[in-house]
Amino acid sequence: MQKLKQKILSEGRVIGNSVLKVDSFLNHQIDPKFMLEMGNELAARFAGEGITRILTVEASGIAVALTTGLSLGVPVVFAKKGRASTQNNNIYSARIYSFTRQEAVDIFVSDKFLGPRDTVLIVDDFLAHGEALRGLLELVDRAGARLAGAGIVIEKVFQGGGAALRERGVRIESLAAIKSMSEECVEFI
Amino acid sequence: MQKLKQKILSEGRVIGNSVLKVDSFLNHQIDPKFMLEMGNELAARFAGEGITRILTVEASGIAVALTTGLSLGVPVVFAKKGRASTQNNNIYSARIYSFTRQEAVDIFVSDKFLGPRDTVLIVDDFLAHGEALRGLLELVDRAGARLAGAGIVIEKVFQGGGAALRERGVRIESLAAIKSMSEECVEFI
Repeated sequence: MQKLKQKILSEGRVIGNSVLKVDSFLNHQIDPKFMLEMGNELAARFAGEGITRILTVEASGIAVALTTGLSLGVPVVFAKKGRASTQNNNIYSARIYSFTRQEAVDIFVSDKFLGPRDTVLIVDDFLAHGEALRGLLELVDRAGARLAGAGIVIEKVFQGGGAALRERGVRIESLAAIKSMSEECVEFI
Repeated sequence: MQKLKQKILSEGRVIGNSVLKVDSFLNHQIDPKFMLEMGNELAARFAGEGITRILTVEASGIAVALTTGLSLGVPVVFAKKGRASTQNNNIYSARIYSFTRQEAVDIFVSDKFLGPRDTVLIVDDFLAHGEALRGLLELVDRAGARLAGAGIVIEKVFQGGGAALRERGVRIESLAAIKSMSEECVEFI
């Protein structure tokens, strides 16, 4: 998606060789109109797949999942982190490791909102090592739902998560795929 | 907002006398089209206030903040919880107490996305004791921004947060205001 690549180049900031800050439009401040365009694009790529639900994980996946769900006309479910005291026991859970926060975290979804009759599109803001996506795939699997694929805003290809999951047969569509990056240069595929 | 009240009555579940679960359309699963209607309604209530930014806090405030920002045509900023390793030091922060999770948590926003030139509308999914809202007001204050008010999806009036903040002069608009509730009955104002 050309406009996204341009925004990454003009507003993004690379820290070291692995962290890309795009907090001006994606994961701290949100540009709502652009979020709508990205949701439309992800929805278009998975049109005709019979998707019944979008699945993401809190927090920064919610915005693009919402606009994708708006475009496809289906509900959005966001997996929660930790276990809230108001949560009942009928949940599917998975453990993921956050490289950003350097800690393991449990994500879960209620069995009311994900089940065997669902065809699921996973949506997230980033795909790097693939930890969050692997956890979300596990939730889809535990729920007995069908997976249509995963729609990602920015894939950091050099961190390998996407390749490993594509090898397992997961269809992944990324709006911007970064081959390599440094403080001087971001190279897209 | 009549449709919201109906949804609370038909899909909500009261646990004890203080917890309202509305996870089928608001804070676990999201109904995107309805979220758009609620955003439009909050935007309409604050039209003409010259709002330049929406402020919310992750995670379940993001969806309604996004649709409100879409309707008003302004950026949405979501305050983060904890301190991510990729965050720099130029932040405003506040400490809030979560009654749901029974712990204090720091919320923060980058000074790049909130400043003296802003007129801010705070948006959140719930207003109960007012802890989150107080923290967000503190961020607006520290940033030297002007506050237009707060737009809330569901206010649990009996928990007193709204009254205390209105007394301080904060304009609060709630789409559904619950006067009292029990497992048998939800009474709106």
